[in-house]
Amino acid sequence: MKSIIRILVCTLLVIPLMSVHGQDRPDPQPAPDIDECFNLGIAGYTFARFDLEKTLETLKRTDVHYLCIKNFHLPLTSTDEEIKAFHAKLKSADVIGYAVGPLYMKTKEEVDQVFEYARRVGVKTIVGVPTYDLLPYVNENVKDLDPRMGMCLDIGHDRRNGKDPVADLEKYHARVFDIHLKDVTDASKHGYSVEVGRGILDIPAFVRMLRKVNYTGVVSLEHERNMDNPFMGIAESIGYFRGVIEATKR
Amino acid sequence: MKSIIRILVCTLLVIPLMSVHGQDRPDPQPAPDIDECFNLGIAGYTFARFDLEKTLETLKRTDVHYLCIKNFHLPLTSTDEEIKAFHAKLKSADVIGYAVGPLYMKTKEEVDQVFEYARRVGVKTIVGVPTYDLLPYVNENVKDLDPRMGMCLDIGHDRRNGKDPVADLEKYHARVFDIHLKDVTDASKHGYSVEVGRGILDIPAFVRMLRKVNYTGVVSLEHERNMDNPFMGIAESIGYFRGVIEATKR
Repeated sequence: MKSIIRILVCTLLVIPLMSVHGQDRPDPQPAPDIDECFNLGIAGYTFARFDLEKTLETLKRTDVHYLCIKNFHLPLTSTDEEIKAFHAKLKSADVIGYAVGPLYMKTKEEVDQVFEYARRVGVKTIVGVPTYDLLPYVNENVKDLDPRMGMCLDIGHDRRNGKDPVADLEKYHARVFDIHLKDVTDASKHGYSVEVGRGILDIPAFVRMLRKVNYTGVVSLEHERNMDNPFMGIAESIGYFRGVIEATKR
Repeated sequence: MKSIIRILVCTLLVIPLMSVHGQDRPDPQPAPDIDECFNLGIAGYTFARFDLEKTLETLKRTDVHYLCIKNFHLPLTSTDEEIKAFHAKLKSADVIGYAVGPLYMKTKEEVDQVFEYARRVGVKTIVGVPTYDLLPYVNENVKDLDPRMGMCLDIGHDRRNGKDPVADLEKYHARVFDIHLKDVTDASKHGYSVEVGRGILDIPAFVRMLRKVNYTGVVSLEHERNMDNPFMGIAESIGYFRGVIEATKR
């Protein structure tokens, strides 16, 4: 019986050096997305069931520094003081609130309210979802549809609509100002969101296209799974995306 | 002021299709490591502060199916009944306990006990840490050092010892029967463990070498950071490694 057992000698000689104290030291190395043309962020909707403190704690743990501000964290009715306090809290966590949304707009009044909100928050980008018949009115706020009206390319929904996000990014990149990163299980309405890397999207091809079109916006993970306890899914998705970034650099 | 704000129309048309029910469906797609020569696992030490239930729940959430059995989950004094129950629990979670260890051995009696334990558990591999002067006695259990005595290559400790894990895998691969996956901050004793992808290891080069030498064992994440709450770090590390696997397939 002895003969079938293999014994492995571990290279464990230096284990005592790793004190608990050591484990708590900050990461010394920038994330692989730091030197890309784009930035990595997380869409606020990911934290629909959590407050801003838990949101910022999660961004810190995943070393992510861009947040698309969702109105359940900063209501449209916020006072200027509340907006100021919100920004201060983000800054203390080394996070930039780079945009607001998604924000739904069903009336002209709501369009006005959303634009006024964005101005007061001080962001240059609204991820907005106006009803289709309001698009001309929205357009009055961003004259001639050019160059300030564009698309938040949600690569998961795009794929579920039967489209190819890699081809669409190439085709529309001049109009793509924000990106929602996710993965889905099927190129149809039966598809649903999963951790990035577990679905059918070709993430390596998408990262290569981000570089090819020199996308300079934020790629924001919008994690829509296990929303009561999304944290491991968020971490796995961020890890996967960064693994792809690193492995496609060469 | 209006002119500086961009409006992005989200492709959100299909959102209502994603019910909570839908989010709970199983993943339809195999992990990218499924069709590799090697398997992805997690070393039991990762869960030093958690019981077997939490361990198996974590493997399920990260879709990992190989576990190196640590003796705090299955003591060396376990009865045959307890071993049987342990294996049944792993099987119900679709997990294979592929090896035992790391196990430290300071006396001949402990060597005997560890080999007997491995036989009773029914695994073919011991990740063992005998004191150096016991190596000849261990050797009697695995005659002639060939071919059953080899190495668990811990790529983090290897790097902290100033070695290059990619080169070492190529050099010693005939003797490498298990691998501990981690990342570290420095190629010296001052280095410490971090989430895979946040340290200095060249993970893409390591994955390519695993294929080049046709490594057919398990690559087991041994996560040694934030051990009171390691779950996001585990998920990020597994995600990163799978992202690298996927992106280096072509």
